[in-house]
Amino acid sequence: MPASFAPSTSVWDLGLVRDNQCLSFWTSEHGTSNSGGESSKESSRSSTPVLAADRTERLRDKMRRRTESGDHWFSLEFFPPRTASGAVNLVSRFDRMGSGGPLFIDITWHPAGDPGSNKETSSMMIASTAVNYCGLESILHLTCCNQTKEKITGYLSKAKHLGLKNIMALRGDPVGADWEEEEGGFNYATDLVKHIRCEFDDYFDICVAGYPTGHPEAESYDEDLRHLKEKVDAGADFIITQLFFRADTFLKFVRDCRAIGITCPILPGIFPIQGYQSLRQLVKLSKLEVPEEIMRVIEPIKDNDAAIRNYGIEQTVGMCRVLLESGNVPGLHFYTLNREVATMEVLRQLGLWIEDPRRPLPWAVSAHPKRKVEDVRPIFWASRPKSYIYRTQDWDDFPNGRWGNSSSPAFGELNDYYLFYLKSKSSKDALLKMWGEELTSEQSVYEVFTSYIKAQPNCAGHKVMCLPWNDELLAPETNLMMDELDKVNRRGVLTINSQPTINGKPSDDPIVGWGPPGGYVFQKAYLEFFTSSENVTVLLKVLKKYEPRVNYHIVNVHGQNTTNAHDMQPNAVTWGIFPGREIVQPTVVDPVSFMYWKDEAFALWIEQWAKLYEDESPSRMIIKYIHDNYFLVNLVDNDFPLDNCLWQVIDDMFELLDNPPEEQPTEQPVEQPAEESPVEDQSPK
Amino acid sequence: MPASFAPSTSVWDLGLVRDNQCLSFWTSEHGTSNSGGESSKESSRSSTPVLAADRTERLRDKMRRRTESGDHWFSLEFFPPRTASGAVNLVSRFDRMGSGGPLFIDITWHPAGDPGSNKETSSMMIASTAVNYCGLESILHLTCCNQTKEKITGYLSKAKHLGLKNIMALRGDPVGADWEEEEGGFNYATDLVKHIRCEFDDYFDICVAGYPTGHPEAESYDEDLRHLKEKVDAGADFIITQLFFRADTFLKFVRDCRAIGITCPILPGIFPIQGYQSLRQLVKLSKLEVPEEIMRVIEPIKDNDAAIRNYGIEQTVGMCRVLLESGNVPGLHFYTLNREVATMEVLRQLGLWIEDPRRPLPWAVSAHPKRKVEDVRPIFWASRPKSYIYRTQDWDDFPNGRWGNSSSPAFGELNDYYLFYLKSKSSKDALLKMWGEELTSEQSVYEVFTSYIKAQPNCAGHKVMCLPWNDELLAPETNLMMDELDKVNRRGVLTINSQPTINGKPSDDPIVGWGPPGGYVFQKAYLEFFTSSENVTVLLKVLKKYEPRVNYHIVNVHGQNTTNAHDMQPNAVTWGIFPGREIVQPTVVDPVSFMYWKDEAFALWIEQWAKLYEDESPSRMIIKYIHDNYFLVNLVDNDFPLDNCLWQVIDDMFELLDNPPEEQPTEQPVEQPAEESPVEDQSPK
Repeated sequence: MPASFAPSTSVWDLGLVRDNQCLSFWTSEHGTSNSGGESSKESSRSSTPVLAADRTERLRDKMRRRTESGDHWFSLEFFPPRTASGAVNLVSRFDRMGSGGPLFIDITWHPAGDPGSNKETSSMMIASTAVNYCGLESILHLTCCNQTKEKITGYLSKAKHLGLKNIMALRGDPVGADWEEEEGGFNYATDLVKHIRCEFDDYFDICVAGYPTGHPEAESYDEDLRHLKEKVDAGADFIITQLFFRADTFLKFVRDCRAIGITCPILPGIFPIQGYQSLRQLVKLSKLEVPEEIMRVIEPIKDNDAAIRNYGIEQTVGMCRVLLESGNVPGLHFYTLNREVATMEVLRQLGLWIEDPRRPLPWAVSAHPKRKVEDVRPIFWASRPKSYIYRTQDWDDFPNGRWGNSSSPAFGELNDYYLFYLKSKSSKDALLKMWGEELTSEQSVYEVFTSYIKAQPNCAGHKVMCLPWNDELLAPETNLMMDELDKVNRRGVLTINSQPTINGKPSDDPIVGWGPPGGYVFQKAYLEFFTSSENVTVLLKVLKKYEPRVNYHIVNVHGQNTTNAHDMQPNAVTWGIFPGREIVQPTVVDPVSFMYWKDEAFALWIEQWAKLYEDESPSRMIIKYIHDNYFLVNLVDNDFPLDNCLWQVIDDMFELLDNPPEEQPTEQPVEQPAEESPVEDQSPK
Repeated sequence: MPASFAPSTSVWDLGLVRDNQCLSFWTSEHGTSNSGGESSKESSRSSTPVLAADRTERLRDKMRRRTESGDHWFSLEFFPPRTASGAVNLVSRFDRMGSGGPLFIDITWHPAGDPGSNKETSSMMIASTAVNYCGLESILHLTCCNQTKEKITGYLSKAKHLGLKNIMALRGDPVGADWEEEEGGFNYATDLVKHIRCEFDDYFDICVAGYPTGHPEAESYDEDLRHLKEKVDAGADFIITQLFFRADTFLKFVRDCRAIGITCPILPGIFPIQGYQSLRQLVKLSKLEVPEEIMRVIEPIKDNDAAIRNYGIEQTVGMCRVLLESGNVPGLHFYTLNREVATMEVLRQLGLWIEDPRRPLPWAVSAHPKRKVEDVRPIFWASRPKSYIYRTQDWDDFPNGRWGNSSSPAFGELNDYYLFYLKSKSSKDALLKMWGEELTSEQSVYEVFTSYIKAQPNCAGHKVMCLPWNDELLAPETNLMMDELDKVNRRGVLTINSQPTINGKPSDDPIVGWGPPGGYVFQKAYLEFFTSSENVTVLLKVLKKYEPRVNYHIVNVHGQNTTNAHDMQPNAVTWGIFPGREIVQPTVVDPVSFMYWKDEAFALWIEQWAKLYEDESPSRMIIKYIHDNYFLVNLVDNDFPLDNCLWQVIDDMFELLDNPPEEQPTEQPVEQPAEESPVEDQSPK
């Protein structure tokens, strides 16, 4: 029996997406556009979803809710990269494109790329990273052709364990020309759908592929439609289609599906033309035909990439408008080819891209099902949320893995420097340029910090874009404190985390807002920095004046710890008050987890900075000296309705350093960290 | 062997305290005052305790902490009343005297009064009420003489089950003259101390009695001291002494105790002389002798009660000053004789009475050990906290019995009208005078509400001091809204609960403050009232304008419910932000428990008001009509930084009632609740 109707030459099955980002799929079957069927909704702007529901609903319920409210959505398809650095870049892309508000993303399955392995380029790992570390609702593709049931069940179990909740069930390409149907095996996607439902009941949401012009191998369009109905009847929740070039093609397909009783959501696969060569390869590899009206425009500009991309955007926007206005299209699914520009531009023009995304919480949430109730984190990992997620991945519940009734926290080992989703985007060379090819003193370290804070070039002319504790530029709210930060870093108060006081700003404030609309957000001022033991000695004297207004923890790498925290209770430093809800307090300064963070924060000096330099080199010794001798300090100003007093605390410390109460100009100071230093301390006295 | 050293003729053992409040105890042994021993502390003002610790620490730890900080305390002794109405009054007294900040109270054991029973006058029930419903740390006395081990274990088990944590272990009076020591029985308090430690390990804190002049039956003062040491060595945690008249008596006793190795706290028993007769009876019944210098003053004024009491106060204050200044007295224990005036005056003069008590939370906490972590309650029971405690007494944990992860609440049955600790302090006669001997219309009910709110006499000239939903006068913070409340009640918006908006007042604000110092408290405005279905129809139209600012629940006695609450989530309406802590949100508007409160709130119309009148009487029918037809409404203004809009909501409702949009002056209104009413609605149109 020929596999005539089996999905085959498709974006999902061929896996060609990894090879030069050229695709497959195509034919040309153009139905006539008409907007019969479901009710047409006006708004094409993704309105703010109910964020709490967004975190707890399963994908098919989110889809239904958005469809019912007429709130159009979009989704994005990516393929696994070939290299580790490609994986690092893709994760950054997830973070950027995730901010535009896709309902979900999906990751294709690449049978030749060891897709179910733990390799950083595997489909499984990329999807897991998207869910766990980027907080994106994700669909993992899975092909079943030539696979044993055990193998498939193993993949699904692993996916479930990793927190994946959605599977795109595909047949995949038969290997070799003489493929034959196997009795009781996976011959068609339908078999995979049945297997998933049989082995995992209702755990996964299942998506299947639809072919608006019929599958190239199908006996007929109608035969293909019947097979699609079989897939849905076997338990699929929704359909994503192969790409097409004309709105009518899709709208006729939807009508035909509805006519034979397919009632689930059908999402159009949208492919913005991004270049002449990729389009040609696509045509060659698939049976889809590019319509003549498109070829007519493209041929004359085939050497002008920008012009073709602009045409692709225009053509796609036009087609999407027709689709959305038909009332039969609740959302659009984009084949991004792992690129950002064209898809984002289309979405912006359609008004679907969320420019100013609402944050459900002030930190980046994870989409792992067991973290759905997570609503509090220590502030320490604010700039390293992926590290926090990694180190708490084994917790059974949130927040009670640490806060509330549970006993002491069990933070994961500090061994995440080499995890691809935590890697710096910058190369060693780039880091050396930013942080100094050669350090001559502690002062030269201070200068790196000030260059970072001012986002200005260092003395060698390179802009400092990141620090070991901050892989991104300063957050907008931190920018509000730039002058103060600059001032204190110059004198060796090396800040790595801070937040200003906020006394009841609206929850939709573009800079500091988070949570549902109509609420108010608050913060206690927070400042965290490394500084010398000499400074700490004076700081402790100053802090006595600020009791009980200021809470502090001061610790060195050996764990020598000084604090005025109350019974080791957490101090809530970010909270929000919302209409009709309980108080949300997503960020705390927690004395217990601070000891775990301390290990990580000190280790970053060595792992990310010192190791850039030769062993025993002066540069390395300077960083090592700071690591061994400086203290990590955090300060909270509890009096949030007043002006932040933490800068005054630091000023008072400088003042006392500059003008010690009993002047003993000729005597040796009791503590002399500068003498123990391998380099001379050049900070101003 | 004669029971020569056994504690006997004492305030605790004789149980005479119930008989005309005359006491026992006395002798005269005057040591010389000298302040050796423990370090002397300056402050005699009870400073604000750390409130969280105060709720979770056991009594002996609280004592130690207060002693170490030099923070003097006081405690109060009461005896069980003879009558049920006496019990009601005593509970009110607990509430009043509890507000002055005693470290603990103790309840004497009255062997003749069925002390371990469930009678409302039993020692056990009075102590349980003090702990559970008045939130007072309490010590239950227990005498063991002539009791079986089973009986004693039974009492202790019951005490533990009821949430009592502290026992004063006493021998009690032998019954009959021919009492002899029983082999293996309870012959002395030491036996009881050992039994408690043996059967209940460290669960109870144990107090024992000390006799500054030696027990009257003891062979010698030194022999008595040795027996006291035995009691302490057996496991007692601290000592309260018999009363005495001279500071030196006590201070010598403490020195003698320390000399033989008694190191636990020793609290002086303070007895302010309150009258000549009670003092004479005391002298007759005990072997304590009133010192001549006191008798010399009292004899000439023996017919002038006020003069004697004033002298008693002066004499006690003087003695207490000497004690506190000695540095050997961490706290004072008062024999109150169940009276308030003299003890409170002494405490005020000593600066130990807390005039402006800090509230750990905005509602009255319970001292039951399992409620120590309780930190959130529905606002509905704000004026009936004892009812709330009663109805949730079977919850295993707080707040998760209802809020958080747990399933639906299991509120206790609504059958608490006859519980003595929930009874109105007013008689039926007094209630009829306040609420109207005869009601003629709904309007006359409205007038009762306005009289209550203004604290002014009703038309019959009687001040309305309480309502079925409010056994006390309006809270000070409610007074802030008096004019608005008066205005709306006049027109049949019958308010039973409200709170104003608070946007960050200091936690030590005398009116609205609560929680530890240095914090800020917040509230969303809340208003709860009964009103007619006619009003509700219009109100619902008005409320549309206030979405989503105002959350509402509107329900009638049949449970017909209208709300715009979010997924039945609780809405936090009171919260506090404190230095170094997580957010505290003690009060919520909880949709689920509102349905339980609704039953209680409606039932109070019938149980407490309608039943004052004859069956079928017009007065009763009027109340019954309101019960059957009115709605219970609650409103929350979520926009706490703005001015409370709830009065505007009600004004808009009146405005719309007065000027309906489509005027149909001659037509019948669609809804005519007035016609269904048994009496004419006289509210202004």
